[in-house]
Amino acid sequence: MSTLTPEQLDRLRVVLVSPRNPLNIGAAARAMSNFGFLRLRVVNPYAVAFREARSAVGASALLEAAEEFGSVAEAVADCALVVGTTSLGHRELQHPLRKLAYGARLMQRRLASRPTALLFGCEKYGLANHDLSHCHWLMRIPTREEHGSMNLGQAVAVSLYELVRDSRAATRKPESAKPAAAGEVERLTAMLLEALKASGYTNPRTAASTEEKMRRLVRRLNLPERDVEIWLGIFRQILWKVGGGAP
Amino acid sequence: MSTLTPEQLDRLRVVLVSPRNPLNIGAAARAMSNFGFLRLRVVNPYAVAFREARSAVGASALLEAAEEFGSVAEAVADCALVVGTTSLGHRELQHPLRKLAYGARLMQRRLASRPTALLFGCEKYGLANHDLSHCHWLMRIPTREEHGSMNLGQAVAVSLYELVRDSRAATRKPESAKPAAAGEVERLTAMLLEALKASGYTNPRTAASTEEKMRRLVRRLNLPERDVEIWLGIFRQILWKVGGGAP
Repeated sequence: MSTLTPEQLDRLRVVLVSPRNPLNIGAAARAMSNFGFLRLRVVNPYAVAFREARSAVGASALLEAAEEFGSVAEAVADCALVVGTTSLGHRELQHPLRKLAYGARLMQRRLASRPTALLFGCEKYGLANHDLSHCHWLMRIPTREEHGSMNLGQAVAVSLYELVRDSRAATRKPESAKPAAAGEVERLTAMLLEALKASGYTNPRTAASTEEKMRRLVRRLNLPERDVEIWLGIFRQILWKVGGGAP
Repeated sequence: MSTLTPEQLDRLRVVLVSPRNPLNIGAAARAMSNFGFLRLRVVNPYAVAFREARSAVGASALLEAAEEFGSVAEAVADCALVVGTTSLGHRELQHPLRKLAYGARLMQRRLASRPTALLFGCEKYGLANHDLSHCHWLMRIPTREEHGSMNLGQAVAVSLYELVRDSRAATRKPESAKPAAAGEVERLTAMLLEALKASGYTNPRTAASTEEKMRRLVRRLNLPERDVEIWLGIFRQILWKVGGGAP
């Protein structure tokens, strides 16, 4: 039924960040199975919830095979595109915000060649700013202002439905330049931060917010794989010179 | 957010036939509220479940205002169009079966003038043949054959999302960020080259080709105006530290 090929379906990583409720984890897994996405990753889940979801009657092989990570950075390290979801329109977002339908078309294209992550935040607060800083851009499900916040399992279902929904865009050719993996981009971010610290750009009091700002700044570059290597070399050299030590 | 007018939203009756699980009733109501459909009808619900759903913490006004009916016939009596949902492809259906995306467009048109009902069957068996006989046609959510059956709350969320989805949005491009002027990009390139020279990255013998390579590298970043300022600040600071002097 899906317009995505089995290879494309297999390239998506659905990432649940800090889920608290076993029913929601189970519901997310069910929607994934309904639409043919089988790779679930869970970041820092409430341990009891994750255990309960896995041991529930009828828990799927998908849930058993779910991978657990300690941070968003690790969970998306192999992904060339990292997309966050939000149902909020009013928050001051630092990211490009795309409508679900349009964002899904962009994701389909990227899935044609590279692993791609779709992030969902915890039930109560959604994705935290720190999680968002790992995202290239965000998708918004068009809920109404008066009641924007969706149930996690339903948000996953709607997003994955939009990804498999029949559309001519799905048959479009993949982009030409091979995008860099998130792990490489994060390495570059770490080097940049090191260089900023060593050169006195960073104010220690605001280091945390600077880190998020820089992470977003680097993601906005949308570096292709071939270029990230060059930039890594450049910053390695600069870092050596400014005395931050090569990481 | 919705492409439907308030009048159109108000003309849809979401009809749950014989729901058994209070959590599912609550989830259906939540998705309705998310997408702006406020008229819930329940046919012959499992009484305990309906009571529990209504008395749950955070149960909405929508759920309190839900109307209860003894039969599908009564629940859809005022509707000019009655559409059933199914996630099954194999059942021998006597009805026209439409893809969700196409069916939703037909429903939108009918909602422009007349009350329309969208039916969801019970969790275990979906809509019974008797229920189906009240439907003009059916919509199928494109789940995969190996795992077709959706959770009720998620099926409601996906169907209603498709009803409010802006079908033109998929083809619209987001506003692209204002690109940086070439002069700014060249200033950044000059600073980068200076930093590379000062840190020993550049081999004097190949400096000319390095310069061209770096110029292309920086152009490929396609920097927006707001970001080029930040990068200029970063390199100004690094340059000061590596001793190249601020240009």
